[in-house]
Amino acid sequence: MRAFKLTLEYDGAAFFGWQLQPGQRTVQGVLEEKLGILLRQEVRIHGAGRTDAGVHALGQVAHFHADTAIDVERLRRSLCGLLPRDVSVVAAQEVDLGFHARRSATGKVYRYTLLHRPSRSPLLERTAWHHIGPLDRGAMRDALSRLVGEHDFASFCSSTATTRTTVRRITHASMVEEGELLSFEVAGTGFLKQQVRSMVGTVVEIGEGRGGPERISELLRAPRREDVGRTAPAHGLVLVRVEYGEE
Amino acid sequence: MRAFKLTLEYDGAAFFGWQLQPGQRTVQGVLEEKLGILLRQEVRIHGAGRTDAGVHALGQVAHFHADTAIDVERLRRSLCGLLPRDVSVVAAQEVDLGFHARRSATGKVYRYTLLHRPSRSPLLERTAWHHIGPLDRGAMRDALSRLVGEHDFASFCSSTATTRTTVRRITHASMVEEGELLSFEVAGTGFLKQQVRSMVGTVVEIGEGRGGPERISELLRAPRREDVGRTAPAHGLVLVRVEYGEE
Repeated sequence: MRAFKLTLEYDGAAFFGWQLQPGQRTVQGVLEEKLGILLRQEVRIHGAGRTDAGVHALGQVAHFHADTAIDVERLRRSLCGLLPRDVSVVAAQEVDLGFHARRSATGKVYRYTLLHRPSRSPLLERTAWHHIGPLDRGAMRDALSRLVGEHDFASFCSSTATTRTTVRRITHASMVEEGELLSFEVAGTGFLKQQVRSMVGTVVEIGEGRGGPERISELLRAPRREDVGRTAPAHGLVLVRVEYGEE
Repeated sequence: MRAFKLTLEYDGAAFFGWQLQPGQRTVQGVLEEKLGILLRQEVRIHGAGRTDAGVHALGQVAHFHADTAIDVERLRRSLCGLLPRDVSVVAAQEVDLGFHARRSATGKVYRYTLLHRPSRSPLLERTAWHHIGPLDRGAMRDALSRLVGEHDFASFCSSTATTRTTVRRITHASMVEEGELLSFEVAGTGFLKQQVRSMVGTVVEIGEGRGGPERISELLRAPRREDVGRTAPAHGLVLVRVEYGEE
């Protein structure tokens, strides 16, 4: 038995998220099907995180075990060739049998992109949330900085999530401006379901003047799911990379 | 009668280019149809350049004349609302009746994007040409620099083009590297049919080692269409902006 680590890029638009679901087209499902054909055995693949329907990835990581003698670069190329155009294997490497894509991960980096201008953008509509109207960038930066640290993010967690604890550590949250594009970069040791989209939605509301930056501090002090902002749409979010301590 | 200047963004994938053609979906055709509905009159629209099938635009410019009292920002918003998702009106302004999108233009800027890595990219496959294998960046930069200036670009012109002269002036040609992305920025006072894609195709061949940078100088000195490189695919090209002297 050998263990493999895959780094994956995908356009989330036509996927019902990462996680295997009967009757739905999911990234995990497509990968397991094509790996099964390539390696002529049933393969169970484990992702570092379960991206939601519509969320993209530049560097999702997954691992699997298989009984095979295949060369790892040939595995990457052959799998890439079998996969549909909206998923690609950016890298493949053999790893220790003890490696686990989710449990071994020490951090994840997400980027959320906002297009801030009056008109739609045909070239960005698949990957950026279009926002019209004034935004107070200073208030947004202040709001983002309040999210950094270890906090109870229960307010920013989808109500359908089941998790032991809602305490998470955000190590970095910033906003980069490039002309009409505002990119939110958020890094943390782990994330709750829809946490990034919920944080971005609230930060954008604060930019619109619906509450000041202190609204973030209040939501972190006394979690109230009903006071949080709308969840930003999935298509603006991309899982940029998963970090592992040894790297 | 009033004259209007439109700045347009479009995803070229589903268009048979800019220019009106019977029975084909073209950007000009779609715009004239929707302007006709909006202004309740037949409108003839003139573009600054005829982008080919599959070529994108961030800042194509077009003008038209119409007998209307409409407010120009309402015109922009209403037209944008009528247009399909792959075209957008980024800006609209009223101009002198003498303004002509093509004849008044003093320059155009194009960008061609190359993705240089072993694996496909689902998130960039619509807007970047995927290239595998080594590229000599120094030779490519040298080749690009030889294109700058006033030259006879007959070698770099589609054989189907009909034009009085094949002499054009390239004012700028550079390559920007951002990780796995190589972007070619090319500016000039005017371009021949498929000129940018033909230049990029030849520069990439030089990067692959098929002839040195002097191949460009030879093609400019003694035009030989048969010695030019392959034409780079349309989907990597975007018309970034059209320049007007008065701006």
